[in-house]
Amino acid sequence: MPEILRGALIVGQSGGPSSAINASAYGVIRTALDSEYITKVYATEYGITGVLNEKLLIMDEEDASELDKFMYTPSSILGSCRYKLPDPDQNDADYRRILEIFKKYDVRYFIYIGGNDSMDTCMKISGFMAKSGYECRVMGVPKTIDNDLCETDHTPGYGSVAKFIATTLMEISRDTAVYKLPVVNIVECMGRDAGWITGAAALANLDSMNCHLIYLPEHTFDMDAFLSDVQISCRKYGSCTVAVSEGVSLKGGEFVKGDNAGAEDGFGHTQLGGVALHLSAMVKNKLELKSRGIELSLLQRCAAHCGSATDAKEAFMAGKAAVEEMLKGTTGKMIGFECDRTSGYKCSIKLVDLDAVANKTKLVPDSWINEAGNGVTSDFTDYLLPLIQGEPDIRRSNGLPDFARLKKVYA
Amino acid sequence: MPEILRGALIVGQSGGPSSAINASAYGVIRTALDSEYITKVYATEYGITGVLNEKLLIMDEEDASELDKFMYTPSSILGSCRYKLPDPDQNDADYRRILEIFKKYDVRYFIYIGGNDSMDTCMKISGFMAKSGYECRVMGVPKTIDNDLCETDHTPGYGSVAKFIATTLMEISRDTAVYKLPVVNIVECMGRDAGWITGAAALANLDSMNCHLIYLPEHTFDMDAFLSDVQISCRKYGSCTVAVSEGVSLKGGEFVKGDNAGAEDGFGHTQLGGVALHLSAMVKNKLELKSRGIELSLLQRCAAHCGSATDAKEAFMAGKAAVEEMLKGTTGKMIGFECDRTSGYKCSIKLVDLDAVANKTKLVPDSWINEAGNGVTSDFTDYLLPLIQGEPDIRRSNGLPDFARLKKVYA
Repeated sequence: MPEILRGALIVGQSGGPSSAINASAYGVIRTALDSEYITKVYATEYGITGVLNEKLLIMDEEDASELDKFMYTPSSILGSCRYKLPDPDQNDADYRRILEIFKKYDVRYFIYIGGNDSMDTCMKISGFMAKSGYECRVMGVPKTIDNDLCETDHTPGYGSVAKFIATTLMEISRDTAVYKLPVVNIVECMGRDAGWITGAAALANLDSMNCHLIYLPEHTFDMDAFLSDVQISCRKYGSCTVAVSEGVSLKGGEFVKGDNAGAEDGFGHTQLGGVALHLSAMVKNKLELKSRGIELSLLQRCAAHCGSATDAKEAFMAGKAAVEEMLKGTTGKMIGFECDRTSGYKCSIKLVDLDAVANKTKLVPDSWINEAGNGVTSDFTDYLLPLIQGEPDIRRSNGLPDFARLKKVYA
Repeated sequence: MPEILRGALIVGQSGGPSSAINASAYGVIRTALDSEYITKVYATEYGITGVLNEKLLIMDEEDASELDKFMYTPSSILGSCRYKLPDPDQNDADYRRILEIFKKYDVRYFIYIGGNDSMDTCMKISGFMAKSGYECRVMGVPKTIDNDLCETDHTPGYGSVAKFIATTLMEISRDTAVYKLPVVNIVECMGRDAGWITGAAALANLDSMNCHLIYLPEHTFDMDAFLSDVQISCRKYGSCTVAVSEGVSLKGGEFVKGDNAGAEDGFGHTQLGGVALHLSAMVKNKLELKSRGIELSLLQRCAAHCGSATDAKEAFMAGKAAVEEMLKGTTGKMIGFECDRTSGYKCSIKLVDLDAVANKTKLVPDSWINEAGNGVTSDFTDYLLPLIQGEPDIRRSNGLPDFARLKKVYA
């Protein structure tokens, strides 16, 4: 039994937001507020940059009823950043600053909610604190709509985006088929390297065919095959609804280009987009069919109104487990999920080494993509279906969601 | 009291789909099936072209439980068309064909659900039948997300798109504000001539500021003023979320151009789109701010999962009233709404002359747009708020909407 550690906790959110990331923050904050050993609960504003800039929000000052709304409030309510800490062996200025702030506020618990880049941040901070002899337990809580973290069955945030994608494709396909003439609507989904988000379109086909073609970045994109697939679909179904990942690339690795492409985000990843418009132009020009490119853009990652209750519940559970584990003495780990789908669905917590996650990407298995590379197998939908169950219990005012708002009391 | 008229009924859907158009069809079909005077209930597939091509679906053959799902099933389940009937004085071939089909199936009731172009179709058919001495009662049921029909308080379909726009802007604005740096997200809404849809973004501001700038097509768009508005918003709020109509135009009438512009639809209207991407590029280039253009595209008109229960209920009521009025002898009219907002909200049916609606457009009143032309007044939101109330009672299967599917038994 490790020694009881008394002190403050800081929680932060990093990377791109999701519909469930605030549920994880709530799991952390609620559990920490309720703990007798955690003396104060801070949130770092705009991720780790809030620690560097000494912008700490006092969560003890917020109303419990407002914190409750975190369960279905989308985006990162604490603010986020895409700031990559330097290698501490090259430049430890940031780390010394973090240590200074941790000492000033007696911070003994640090939880970072984010993706694989954020787990790298956790690992570096954890390592520096240990080297400095300052006792601070550090935990990562996974978050990414991309579902591309290793060593966990899935990530909080994914179930909600999957539910939005499937629902939206069921709706769009009905719009696609409304006129007698063949129409080709091409829906672009997020997912730079991994096709988890785009593959969720297959859920739209459980009852009847809605999304005829699905292209993931794991499979080389062939323009001629695509155009032929579209023709076949129009002949067979009268119209064609397509889901395509923003990250699909041609043989040789070149991205299927759109006009939006080019810029880089703070982590140095190329910002994609515009694939749907590009493919739609190809369909119009080469096949002379009516076509529309639709980029789901930010909607897919913030559509809390169409979120998954299972996702929100598990996101909360991950945040709660992180605090409980830390109180038991655990440090330098990420909370992961282990799921059993043999009879029903059961999701439990496991602990994952940060270095098994940091900067790594989990792709959709080859065997879950069909041979033609234009769809996914039932292994994919069997895996995904439990994650989208349940409707979020959104409080409403005036017919609109009543999202959480913070008082923002700074330390 | 007019003579009782026994015979079959045909219902059709025309123009662009909406989330509520099937609720209107259900209002017609359910009421007609329950009437002792209506001998058979047909739906014309793909609008009036289904009559011309003798593609009539027998609604008596469909399961009642499946018809029930029309209440929240988006898009035009009977199929739609954008076919404009010629002037019968120039060319009456189509009309003679329609008369032939009506006689063959003993059709004495014809209901067309659509926008102002569709009311033109109703008027022409009604006129031709009268001239031919064939007794057939004709009614129009309004439908358009655009809300631009004259002589009615609002149109079925509008409440649902408004609710989706407001909800989505509340969500997107949280994503816009997630990083510390100023971000400008520009959301493009449908509405060629009228700003009803775009103006719904103002509902996102009832509780707290979410959508900072709103540009309707009724007001001349000034690029310099826009860029200045964006700068002011970023300074004041840290970020900027913009709603802009696809139809905004510069002084002189030229559309604010996007790359998607150009093609024409079946009624000869120019298809717009790409305004958000264009404005976003301007913000990046001129203001050097991070910006994203988001086109809500088809999502806004088919997002039944985020529909308004009030809208669906009123859409049903309009279809039901059309049948009830016809049974009383009414013909050559459109069902309209008359609403009282003095204490609470009350919506009742009124009858509107088809020629007061056909080919006409109702714009947002000047006095409902603010002086700077970058927002709407409380008159607009007071008018709109009752229309978005209530959540649709969607049946679900596997966590996804269980939309209606027809057997499609042809006559």
